[in-house]
Amino acid sequence: MAERAIEAVVLDVYGTLFGFGRLVERARAIVGDLPLLDHWRTKQLEQSFLRTILGEYVDFWTVTEEALDAVCAQLELELMPEEREHLLHGWLELDPFPEVSGALELLRERGLRLAVLSNGSPAMLESLLQHAELDALFEVVLSADAVRRYKPSPAVYALVPAALVVPPERILFCSANGFDVAGALRFGFQVCWVNRGNTKLDALGKQPHFTVHSLLELVEYL
Amino acid sequence: MAERAIEAVVLDVYGTLFGFGRLVERARAIVGDLPLLDHWRTKQLEQSFLRTILGEYVDFWTVTEEALDAVCAQLELELMPEEREHLLHGWLELDPFPEVSGALELLRERGLRLAVLSNGSPAMLESLLQHAELDALFEVVLSADAVRRYKPSPAVYALVPAALVVPPERILFCSANGFDVAGALRFGFQVCWVNRGNTKLDALGKQPHFTVHSLLELVEYL
Repeated sequence: MAERAIEAVVLDVYGTLFGFGRLVERARAIVGDLPLLDHWRTKQLEQSFLRTILGEYVDFWTVTEEALDAVCAQLELELMPEEREHLLHGWLELDPFPEVSGALELLRERGLRLAVLSNGSPAMLESLLQHAELDALFEVVLSADAVRRYKPSPAVYALVPAALVVPPERILFCSANGFDVAGALRFGFQVCWVNRGNTKLDALGKQPHFTVHSLLELVEYL
Repeated sequence: MAERAIEAVVLDVYGTLFGFGRLVERARAIVGDLPLLDHWRTKQLEQSFLRTILGEYVDFWTVTEEALDAVCAQLELELMPEEREHLLHGWLELDPFPEVSGALELLRERGLRLAVLSNGSPAMLESLLQHAELDALFEVVLSADAVRRYKPSPAVYALVPAALVVPPERILFCSANGFDVAGALRFGFQVCWVNRGNTKLDALGKQPHFTVHSLLELVEYL
């Protein structure tokens, strides 16, 4: 890899910088072994895709609420209002993966510009990054909300070169999510798949430029 | 309901006219109790959504192939070439639900025009409808392929009033799939949810005009 080619590293948030462990715990305390979070996350993504296709945007907090309610209806699960609130607010208090803070510091020391690009609403991202004390590390925090559609819409990825004034091929986009890898590759970024779960990638037939298991591995490449 | 308002009944195919029972059997004969078809169908829909958002169309046969391969990779399942073929060809030889043929005949006797609107490719739909001997019942068989994107894109639903030369509010669109009900409602059809599984509908916050458990129930309404 030509080291000087990359000027900026842009990262996805949910599943990439932040794990869902705390949400899993909250869900388990309320509903036991039922895999509520798996269903919720799947539904949240499905609804974000569908709303993008329908052209009927609501912000990601609303998507997250509606997805929880839809999943609870399908599972015939009645949450108390305070349980529902507790679960929803879990999205604002997720824990970053353990290496994230250190890895980001190292990337910055190498002169790389750092940014975030997420489906999360600006308020969700602000809460989350402040809570984890990561907000100061990023030059810019970009939300799909600015274009009122969700990843993998090309319009979302287009926010990055516009905000950084850097062409896509000099940007390394990092995500743990297959659909996000798929979208970022098609947009023309260099792409790193963060394979946190040791799973098989489904990026609709395309391969990322890099695959790592943690962001510290990425530091070694750059 | 004002009876004369409806001039045409337009039906979704997979899950609405045709069940997956035969595919479930084929999958069980090959992989046992693993719920391969559930994963496959979920992946097939997800990839159709993602390709629509990405603007990177491939036809539904290709989507169906790619979804099977992606799911097998994720499940670490290696199919023999003839097993893979056998599963794929199952999509061309599904059985219609038992009441379908009779219910459609009754709708035609009432003077209603009948059509199909499906994500399936023209070749898939032709094989399927001929195999089930239902092809003569429909005035027109419309495929999302004509606009190179998938439901619930409004462009797909727009094929119907264009082909029938009937305004959307005089068309009753029937589907068992929540995302399809969601899209059809937003497009302005009258919509009937065919709740074949006795489940909860997720149509992203909107309610259909009718809910039935089989198409024979629909005949009673019209």
